[in-house]
Amino acid sequence: MVGSVGNGLLDLGGREKVEPLPKEFDPEEIVDSLLHSESNIVGKEEDGTSRKIVLGRNVHTMCLEVKEPEADDEITGEREAYMAGVLARYRRSLIDRTKHHLGYPYNLDFDYGALIHLQHFSINNLGDPFIESNYGVHSRQFEVGVLDWFARLWELEKNEYWGYITNCGTEGNLHGILVGREVFPNGILYASKESHYSVFKAARMYRMECVKVATLVSGEIDCTDFRAKLVQNKEKPAIININIGTTVKGAVDDLDLVIQTLEENGFKDRFYIHCDGALFGLMMPFIKRSAMEFWAGTKSDVQEAYRKCECVRDATIMGSRNGHAPIFLWYTLNRKGYRGFQKEVQKCLRNAHYLKNRLKEAGIGVMLNELSSTVVFERPKDEDFIRQWQLVCEGNIAHVVVMPNVTIEKLDYFLRELLEKRSHWYQEGTISPPCLAAEIGEANCFYWCDGLDVRRLIRTPLAYCIFLEFVDSICSGCETRA
Amino acid sequence: MVGSVGNGLLDLGGREKVEPLPKEFDPEEIVDSLLHSESNIVGKEEDGTSRKIVLGRNVHTMCLEVKEPEADDEITGEREAYMAGVLARYRRSLIDRTKHHLGYPYNLDFDYGALIHLQHFSINNLGDPFIESNYGVHSRQFEVGVLDWFARLWELEKNEYWGYITNCGTEGNLHGILVGREVFPNGILYASKESHYSVFKAARMYRMECVKVATLVSGEIDCTDFRAKLVQNKEKPAIININIGTTVKGAVDDLDLVIQTLEENGFKDRFYIHCDGALFGLMMPFIKRSAMEFWAGTKSDVQEAYRKCECVRDATIMGSRNGHAPIFLWYTLNRKGYRGFQKEVQKCLRNAHYLKNRLKEAGIGVMLNELSSTVVFERPKDEDFIRQWQLVCEGNIAHVVVMPNVTIEKLDYFLRELLEKRSHWYQEGTISPPCLAAEIGEANCFYWCDGLDVRRLIRTPLAYCIFLEFVDSICSGCETRA
Repeated sequence: MVGSVGNGLLDLGGREKVEPLPKEFDPEEIVDSLLHSESNIVGKEEDGTSRKIVLGRNVHTMCLEVKEPEADDEITGEREAYMAGVLARYRRSLIDRTKHHLGYPYNLDFDYGALIHLQHFSINNLGDPFIESNYGVHSRQFEVGVLDWFARLWELEKNEYWGYITNCGTEGNLHGILVGREVFPNGILYASKESHYSVFKAARMYRMECVKVATLVSGEIDCTDFRAKLVQNKEKPAIININIGTTVKGAVDDLDLVIQTLEENGFKDRFYIHCDGALFGLMMPFIKRSAMEFWAGTKSDVQEAYRKCECVRDATIMGSRNGHAPIFLWYTLNRKGYRGFQKEVQKCLRNAHYLKNRLKEAGIGVMLNELSSTVVFERPKDEDFIRQWQLVCEGNIAHVVVMPNVTIEKLDYFLRELLEKRSHWYQEGTISPPCLAAEIGEANCFYWCDGLDVRRLIRTPLAYCIFLEFVDSICSGCETRA
Repeated sequence: MVGSVGNGLLDLGGREKVEPLPKEFDPEEIVDSLLHSESNIVGKEEDGTSRKIVLGRNVHTMCLEVKEPEADDEITGEREAYMAGVLARYRRSLIDRTKHHLGYPYNLDFDYGALIHLQHFSINNLGDPFIESNYGVHSRQFEVGVLDWFARLWELEKNEYWGYITNCGTEGNLHGILVGREVFPNGILYASKESHYSVFKAARMYRMECVKVATLVSGEIDCTDFRAKLVQNKEKPAIININIGTTVKGAVDDLDLVIQTLEENGFKDRFYIHCDGALFGLMMPFIKRSAMEFWAGTKSDVQEAYRKCECVRDATIMGSRNGHAPIFLWYTLNRKGYRGFQKEVQKCLRNAHYLKNRLKEAGIGVMLNELSSTVVFERPKDEDFIRQWQLVCEGNIAHVVVMPNVTIEKLDYFLRELLEKRSHWYQEGTISPPCLAAEIGEANCFYWCDGLDVRRLIRTPLAYCIFLEFVDSICSGCETRA
């Protein structure tokens, strides 16, 4: 077996992991809008029929115009004053937007003021971090230090891996999947439908056959469906994307089961696995070692999986690479150390469970996967509220990713606002909250529903659920528990 | 005709344009080492034969290890002191490496200390800059301002373009060529052999047929060869990469002639052009408007070309994107304005000519293309010297890219060192400087040679060449002019 470890290895301290979801998220649709661009472009087919071109929608809702300096600006200082004003106002807005943020997997506890003196240098890590460059203004020595740190985290020896710090998680996926295609040029890419959209984008970019696999309610890959799809394509090798944390539900694919499924169906030595480390590639090793009780039932040894996924040597997808990023990472890793990260991960998980419990108490449908700090719950009805808290939504669900900067105080602030507003959205006798059984399972949904007929929802929310997290199936078959 | 404008639009103020060249540069070879990775990976073919796997060469020549903090570090302050020491030493090395740099197209006159307060925020511009994101900690308003500035520079209306700020030049090329492939799914990619290696990487990533076109001695695309190759492939549409500044020689492809060649050979409305803006996409508009005499003979109206290359709407290749970069750009553009850039461009060109003249005076083979600030000359014989000055070399030639931070003083310092050392490398009666006729043309080479037989080089360097730049062909057919 060969494979690659994706984003976790390559990411700026757990930030920059997940791309934005449109309000109604469909990976297919996004990939289509990205890549079916031929329909938007003027051109002619070879047979002479013309192709439509529509120039890009280019909406200037927000634009800070660059103004040409006046000739005397240098003397009057007007230019500097103008820019300082713009930047000060912008900084105020960043403070507010940082304060009200819950939806994306970014640690907004972010302070690199100590690196101010490096702002004077144009640092660029061109190409392979292990090959010396003639360009001297680089930070490869920091980059390799960071890579070694991650290798140790994943129990890889220093000489067992290759890697680099990418610009974003998408680049990690593009790289890992490209290596897979080069190993098996006619391989089929299998990915669960809840994989990050960059996986499907890669398939189209690389002209690979791609088979989408169903998921369980948790968001994990459904290995029964995976088996069925493998059996239909026995003649071609398999390239599999494994999610170490899906984007929306924070579900971790069962790698052991995936490998077992491959081997039982005649794919031994004919498969390549790319692990999309996403958010939990960094967190998982700390979770596994922790004594916290809710990890007792963990299904697979993901650390073992990382060992199995050997990284192969290859060059970078991008050429020039930001040389400041590795220094930021190095700085943070040095300050926190493994122990510091372990504490942060534990805090995230505790706070995620806190949020889940509070939502349950309030009678709001909610799900929190094992190994996950992504709390999935009923989509707030008010778009302004969603925007205010920068929530990521898909269909009837929203999520909060509990990162180190998300404190109990912030969660309480959010919960107060949510419950206050929600009482107006769903006043008795008016509209009901949506049924989430399809998205998060009946066990996590507080409303009984008859299949897809959401018109028959019961309107009285549960009010006493504080201990329900230990109950297997709380609303299956009943109208409400009230 | 449809097309895209590449790096120029997308780049951080003309920086981060060109990836590093290995000592002996062959785009094909680099692409091979990047993409023929299957030969390095363990796997099995479907017929059961095994494929070789070699784990990556991972040479830890440089590594700043991340050390785990001691338990009492917070009290003793040892950790902070250790990091401050590392960073201070690193900063000193950056000052030295910035001082001795001439080879890459980066403006090392780089100071963004004024943006220190923004180091406290995790700014991320996910996806399309023109589509609002729920993630509030972004800098789209700066990004769109920067894009508008470039649109105006290239005489495009605000509603006529689409674009985004990429992570690097390679991403610009990957994007433009992908759009081309989506417009013409069976199109052939044509690129001159001196195109940036990312163009050939794109072809392999995207599984596109790719035809390499010969170049003139200047480095420009050879339209006679282009015509011959088009005629051989009349049945398929053409996707063409145009270099607005090649990597090594800074040659600008003749866009008008390329278009004329396409139209004369039956490709009207069956071609797509991607302009790789590289370094001169930013400089060209200022050059065209300048009154400097050496631009009098300019061949094509490149601004017109930009107008012809409509940008089409598409999403970004990367998902998460550095949100600090647009603010850096916005800050620089606002400070300098068009007038400031024009002055800088003129300074670069003047200094490039100064360097060329000084090299000529010293009897060193040298070439400087029209519209270019890239001075190509005889490769220094000493690898330490090359490393010291961070020169980019290919075969027998090296180049200096004269950027705004490259002053006359710095060039004089470089020239003194070069001439002093060169007098040792080529002492009378010992080894001779290489013949550069193949690389830069006989007109620019100071040594006569018989075809490729460099053993017959004459050993006496020219000593008086001060006015030779006005002479067409200075060493053709003679042994030396001395």
